[in-house]
Amino acid sequence: MAFAALWDSLLPLGRYAPTGGYRRFSWTEADAACRAWFKEQALERGLRATCDRNGNLWAWWDCPGSRLGAIATGSHLDSVPDGGAFDGPLGVVSAFAAIDLLRAGGFVPARPLAVAAFSEEEGGRFGLACLGSRLLTGVIAPDAARGLTDASGVSLASAMTAAGLDPAGLGPDEELLAGLGAFVELHIEQGSALTGQGAAVGIAEAIWAHGRWRLDFSGRADHAGTTRLEDRRDPMLPFAATVLSARRIAAEHRMLATVGKVIASPGAVNAISSSVSGWLDARAPHEPALEAAVAEIGQAAEEHAALHGARCDVRRESFTPRVEFDAGLRQRLGGALSARGIAAPVLPTGAGHDAGILAAWLPTAMLFVRNPTGVSHAPAEHAGAADCETGVVALAAVLAELASR
Amino acid sequence: MAFAALWDSLLPLGRYAPTGGYRRFSWTEADAACRAWFKEQALERGLRATCDRNGNLWAWWDCPGSRLGAIATGSHLDSVPDGGAFDGPLGVVSAFAAIDLLRAGGFVPARPLAVAAFSEEEGGRFGLACLGSRLLTGVIAPDAARGLTDASGVSLASAMTAAGLDPAGLGPDEELLAGLGAFVELHIEQGSALTGQGAAVGIAEAIWAHGRWRLDFSGRADHAGTTRLEDRRDPMLPFAATVLSARRIAAEHRMLATVGKVIASPGAVNAISSSVSGWLDARAPHEPALEAAVAEIGQAAEEHAALHGARCDVRRESFTPRVEFDAGLRQRLGGALSARGIAAPVLPTGAGHDAGILAAWLPTAMLFVRNPTGVSHAPAEHAGAADCETGVVALAAVLAELASR
Repeated sequence: MAFAALWDSLLPLGRYAPTGGYRRFSWTEADAACRAWFKEQALERGLRATCDRNGNLWAWWDCPGSRLGAIATGSHLDSVPDGGAFDGPLGVVSAFAAIDLLRAGGFVPARPLAVAAFSEEEGGRFGLACLGSRLLTGVIAPDAARGLTDASGVSLASAMTAAGLDPAGLGPDEELLAGLGAFVELHIEQGSALTGQGAAVGIAEAIWAHGRWRLDFSGRADHAGTTRLEDRRDPMLPFAATVLSARRIAAEHRMLATVGKVIASPGAVNAISSSVSGWLDARAPHEPALEAAVAEIGQAAEEHAALHGARCDVRRESFTPRVEFDAGLRQRLGGALSARGIAAPVLPTGAGHDAGILAAWLPTAMLFVRNPTGVSHAPAEHAGAADCETGVVALAAVLAELASR
Repeated sequence: MAFAALWDSLLPLGRYAPTGGYRRFSWTEADAACRAWFKEQALERGLRATCDRNGNLWAWWDCPGSRLGAIATGSHLDSVPDGGAFDGPLGVVSAFAAIDLLRAGGFVPARPLAVAAFSEEEGGRFGLACLGSRLLTGVIAPDAARGLTDASGVSLASAMTAAGLDPAGLGPDEELLAGLGAFVELHIEQGSALTGQGAAVGIAEAIWAHGRWRLDFSGRADHAGTTRLEDRRDPMLPFAATVLSARRIAAEHRMLATVGKVIASPGAVNAISSSVSGWLDARAPHEPALEAAVAEIGQAAEEHAALHGARCDVRRESFTPRVEFDAGLRQRLGGALSARGIAAPVLPTGAGHDAGILAAWLPTAMLFVRNPTGVSHAPAEHAGAADCETGVVALAAVLAELASR
């Protein structure tokens, strides 16, 4: 099937009409529709469809007689709230399209190939990114994962049970990992570097160190209409000052810092908040720079809190060190692409990916496809049809290179 | 019944154990329990209990043969989210206790007396404060009120229907208003002025001009891990800068400004917000000062937004001009109290009350009871037992003065 038709078959699933974005949250109806789509694509191609114990989907092009590790490719189908169509799905659709291309060209693999769709990559429902690959590799303890809750208080365990999966099976899957020889994830670029360099595709060099911190500012709830300014302990003020400090400190350190989530309690218009919680997302090329900057932001938060008679507690919710992708694999990718006449610059990225989690267990690589808007995690995220086709050709070339021996 | 026992009978209703505060939102189970309590208190005293077309509760001490307007007293039973026990209920409980005191003293009224509990005074569920008294006096159009929705999207009309009331009856009730001669609301002080002056009770002079404004900052959703700082249009930054500007401007104008509610969309930790909405509560002694300060805050918000490539739209959601309580009534109150040996200083307030809405239709007055914590709209809100008793004695003296002829 051509890329465009395959792409269009996935496009309507989980789309939220009012924003034009996607709400494909794990273990919801939209997620079930995406999973059914994946299975259908596997079956149409005679690929063996499986769902591993952690809810990750696989479509296997078996290679009877081969004892070599499989070459896996793919990405994820879930989205952030009101995210774009490409982040995740482009890698899965391109994987199926690349297999179609290989077969159309009569390619005979020397080892198995697999298409993967990892579960809850965005952490859009349960708050922890790359949950499926973290569980698969044992980076998160099954009990901790089962106890994660969504905004309505539903646990991952309950959500999986409701979707017909047994959460007792969660946890590292060494047998599955042992059967993999390499993983290549194709992904839309989440910035404008390829546009700047005039290239349709790129190869990932590394993923920046990144993490999430929760900043809890606590003050004293009071009446907004009767409490004198000087008697207040309003936690909204140090929260606001910290948002601005985080931006200034990030600029000074040439890194990224974002506050995209905030909850004020009790949240009444006519009440001074008792507490305001903000979440800091921070990313830097290397751990020491990241840790230094976050420490500086935390100190600023505490100083702002003290100024307003409030308190600030900073808690790290997640942390991922810098991930360097396999240099040898990267060279093979570059070679395969230049042999096809595709110039693919090497890029760093600030975004986490399942490939980054898997990189500690097996050789992994990433291909990026140009995103002319530079926008990501939003409906304006976009890749042109020709660039998507080039991505499929590039991925097919890479798979052929890796699976031919 | 003594004040303390009466107070204790209401205390458990709608209490939210985890915070120790109250969640008595209109037309919920907790609200129904409070309404049942009100009716029971009326019946126990042989008062005629009615619920007007707007959901406000009344307990009438009828005075057959009198053609004089009734002296009404009371307050409200609903709360802000996790509010204190006293804001509202103190006025209703003190009203019943004052009637008990008058009857124990053999008082024979020359005109009817009534205890009132107004609906949705806090706007805690449907966002508009003093909704019951606004409807009663026609300050809000019935259609606009019916269409108000709570955080879950439930309309006032549906909530009332579910509670067994007909929302078709909402609207001004001139007959009821025509039967009222005066309204006196007893309320806990929502600040520390009485503590500063060493007085158990005070008399209200005026309610500051006050209102609510919604500030919508719109930017562009983007990936927090890949979008360069200089490419961002993050609406969280101008929101934060505006919170700080509002505080600075309020201090300069010697008024009050608070941002207690904020919603960031999409609200994901790893996504730059597409929009951030903040609600500004602002209050000042007189309208011109309030309007000037809010205009200044709005201009600052627009400037901050422009600096970050975002936009800010400011919309006024409600506005209440300064309310001067009836000077003649205030003098009669002062006279009645000093005759009982109670020194009651005259105070302004920044808080809106049903008495402020009713003041445009009939002579109204307010009594405040000392609040040693100065805290309001929070569980720490408090009035001492002796001060509450003094409040009941003061209210009874005022009712006797007003209803004796």
